[in-house]
Amino acid sequence: MKFFTQKDRLTAAIQDVLKAVATRTTIPILTGIKIEADKAGIKLTASDSDISIESFIPAEEEDKENAEIIEPGAIVLPARFFSEIVRKLPESVIDLEVVDHFKTIIRSGNIEYNLNGLDAEEYPRLPKISEDGAFTLPADLLKTLIRQTVFAVSTSETRPILTGVNWKIENNQLTAVATDSHRLAMKKVPLNSSSGGDKVYNIVIPGKSLNELVKILDDSRDQVEIVITGNHILFKAKNMLFLSRLLEGNYPDTSRLIPTDSKTVVKLDAKEYYGAVDRASLLAREAKNNVIKFSTVDQNTVEISSYTPEVGKVVEKIRSLSMEGEDIKISFNALYMMDALRAADGTELTIYFTGAMRPFVIKTDDDDSLVQLLLPVRTF
Amino acid sequence: MKFFTQKDRLTAAIQDVLKAVATRTTIPILTGIKIEADKAGIKLTASDSDISIESFIPAEEEDKENAEIIEPGAIVLPARFFSEIVRKLPESVIDLEVVDHFKTIIRSGNIEYNLNGLDAEEYPRLPKISEDGAFTLPADLLKTLIRQTVFAVSTSETRPILTGVNWKIENNQLTAVATDSHRLAMKKVPLNSSSGGDKVYNIVIPGKSLNELVKILDDSRDQVEIVITGNHILFKAKNMLFLSRLLEGNYPDTSRLIPTDSKTVVKLDAKEYYGAVDRASLLAREAKNNVIKFSTVDQNTVEISSYTPEVGKVVEKIRSLSMEGEDIKISFNALYMMDALRAADGTELTIYFTGAMRPFVIKTDDDDSLVQLLLPVRTF
Repeated sequence: MKFFTQKDRLTAAIQDVLKAVATRTTIPILTGIKIEADKAGIKLTASDSDISIESFIPAEEEDKENAEIIEPGAIVLPARFFSEIVRKLPESVIDLEVVDHFKTIIRSGNIEYNLNGLDAEEYPRLPKISEDGAFTLPADLLKTLIRQTVFAVSTSETRPILTGVNWKIENNQLTAVATDSHRLAMKKVPLNSSSGGDKVYNIVIPGKSLNELVKILDDSRDQVEIVITGNHILFKAKNMLFLSRLLEGNYPDTSRLIPTDSKTVVKLDAKEYYGAVDRASLLAREAKNNVIKFSTVDQNTVEISSYTPEVGKVVEKIRSLSMEGEDIKISFNALYMMDALRAADGTELTIYFTGAMRPFVIKTDDDDSLVQLLLPVRTF
Repeated sequence: MKFFTQKDRLTAAIQDVLKAVATRTTIPILTGIKIEADKAGIKLTASDSDISIESFIPAEEEDKENAEIIEPGAIVLPARFFSEIVRKLPESVIDLEVVDHFKTIIRSGNIEYNLNGLDAEEYPRLPKISEDGAFTLPADLLKTLIRQTVFAVSTSETRPILTGVNWKIENNQLTAVATDSHRLAMKKVPLNSSSGGDKVYNIVIPGKSLNELVKILDDSRDQVEIVITGNHILFKAKNMLFLSRLLEGNYPDTSRLIPTDSKTVVKLDAKEYYGAVDRASLLAREAKNNVIKFSTVDQNTVEISSYTPEVGKVVEKIRSLSMEGEDIKISFNALYMMDALRAADGTELTIYFTGAMRPFVIKTDDDDSLVQLLLPVRTF
C-alpha cells in the first residue's frame, strides 16, 4: 500500500474513528486503526466491539484531489501513535507506505516515521448490515434528539436496560425515551413514509454510543440514513459509518408514568430560573442529594431555597410569568433540574405539578415534542 | 460588619487569595477566607501555613467607589462556598452583613444567602515582616524570572532543598537557580543600589509558592517590593501581599557545574527544533525515559531521531543555522529539552556541547541572562 493524502483530511478522519478505538481490550489489534486504500480513496476503521466507526476520504471530491493512491492495500497502525504523529506533522502532504512485514513508513517533508503495523487480515470483520429497513433524519435533528434525551439514561448497571435510550418507531413517528427512574426525557420526532416512517421498531441504543455519535455528526441538514437489524443500528452519514450494538431486553413502558392532568401550572423565564436553581444548589451540594425547594409565593413570585444546617441557607425570589391552580411547595434534585433545563432550548418553560409527592412535567415554549419528568424528593 | 461592594472587585480579590486556601489541613479555620472591613476598604486573607495571600479592595480608588463600609468588622467564611456564591450572583452590587453569632448574610437583588461564619479572632496571625531589607523588581520581569527557572525544580522530596529555587543577591545582581540534578536553569537579573541591589541574600523559595505567585501577578511594569526575613519572603504588589515561607538548608553550589569551554557549537531555529524534538519524543514516550538522539550530519544539517523497538523509529533532518567544532552524537530526555525551550523566549538558540557524556548548555538569541544546562543520557 502506498498513498499521498492531505494532512487535514487524514487528521479529521482519524479524529472521527478515534472515538471507537478500544482502550482496554482483550483483542490487542482493536487498539489500532485499520487503514485501507483503493482507487476510490482511503478508509479508516476503528472498533471497540460495542461501537465501530468508518471514515472515508474519497480520492477525489468535487474536483478536489484529497488523496493519490499509488498502490492499494491495507494495514493496521497503533491508534495513539498514528493519530499523534499525523497531528504533529508540519507539512500539508503526507506520504504513507507499507513496506515489508507490515512496517509502515510515514513521510512528510524531512521527517520519516517507521511504525510497526499489524496485518489487516487479522482485524475483526464488522457485521454486515443489509440496506433494508432504512429511514432517514437530518443530521442536526438527530443531534438534537440525542442531546435532549441521552443525559437522562441511568449510569448504574443495576438495571442495564436503563443505560440506553429507547427508540420506538410507529405511525410515522419516532419516540425517544430515557430514564434513570428519578427523571425521564421523552422526545417525539415526526417521520414520513418516504423517509421510512411506516416501519415499526422498538429498540434500546446504549447511551454511550449515542454520546459518541453526537460528537462526530456535523450540524448540517444532510440526511443520515439509519438501518436497524436484530442486534445493531447503523448510522450512515456523508463519508462516515457509525455502527452500534443494541441493548437486549425489554424497555419498561413509561407512557403511563407521565401525568395527564395537573393541579398547578407555573410559567417561568428559563434563564432566570436556571440561575436561581444553580445558586440554590451551591449549598445543597454539601448534602448528598442536592435537594432544593420550590414554593409558589403569590401569582407573580416563586421562591427557590435550600437549607444545609452545617453551611447555611439561601432564599431567592424570581418572577413567575403566570401561575394557575393551587399553591405548591415541592423539593427536588437541583442537578437533575439543571440537566433538564440545559436539554430544553427555549426562553420560557412551563412546569405542571400534580402535588408535592407526585412526579411533575417540564415543557419549554409550549413545545410538546419534548416532555421531561422529574420525581420530587421527600423532605420532612 | 456590613458593607456594599462591586461584584467584579470582590470576585477578583477572592480569586487572588483562593490560591492560598488550605485544602487539607489540621486547622479547619484555614479552609476559610478572612474578611476584614474598615473605612479604608475590605481586606481578604487566606493561608495554608506555607503561603499566605492578602488582597485589598480600597473603598475609593482614583475617584471610583469600590466599596461602602457601613460598619467595620471581621469574619471568616468557608472559601469554597463564598467564592462560588459571589461568582454566581447576577447583580453587580453585593451586600455583606454579619449578624449574630457569626451568621453572615450575603444579599444581591432578590437573593439572600445566610452562611455560617467563624470568629475572625480565631484566625492565625500572619508573621509580622519588618520593612527593612526591601528591594524591588517590575512585576513582568519578576514573572519572567520565575517562569524561566521554576520548571526545573525537583518534584521529589528525596532532597527537599531542590524543590525550591535558589535566589542569590549580591553585587547588584539577582541570580535565580533551579535544578533537579538532571537539568538546571539559571537566570540573572541586574538590580541597582536604589532598588536594593546592595543587599546580600542567599535564600531558597519553594517552587510551589513561586508557581502560585506567578499566577496572580499581572504583566505590568509596576514595581513589586520584596522583603526577605530569616524564614519568609514577602512580595508586595498593588493591593496584594504574598507571603511564603523559605526552605531551610544550604543550596548546593551549582556554579562549577556549568562548563565554560565547548567543543561543538550549533545554532538552530528555535521553533523548528522544538517541533522536531516534540515529534521524535512521540515514540520515545513509550520507553520510560523519553530519550531522543541529536546528531550533527554536516555543517548545515542536524538529525533528530528516536528508536523504540516495540513501536518503531523516527528520523528528522533540520537545518542548523551554523555549526562550529567537532561532530557530535548525543542523547537526552526530550521532555527536559522541551521544558528548556519553552522557558526560553527567542527565535534562535545555541547549544554548546563539550562531548557526548558531558552536560551541555543552551542559550537563546545570544542572551547570557538565561543559561540552561541539560545532562545527556547514556545509550548503548
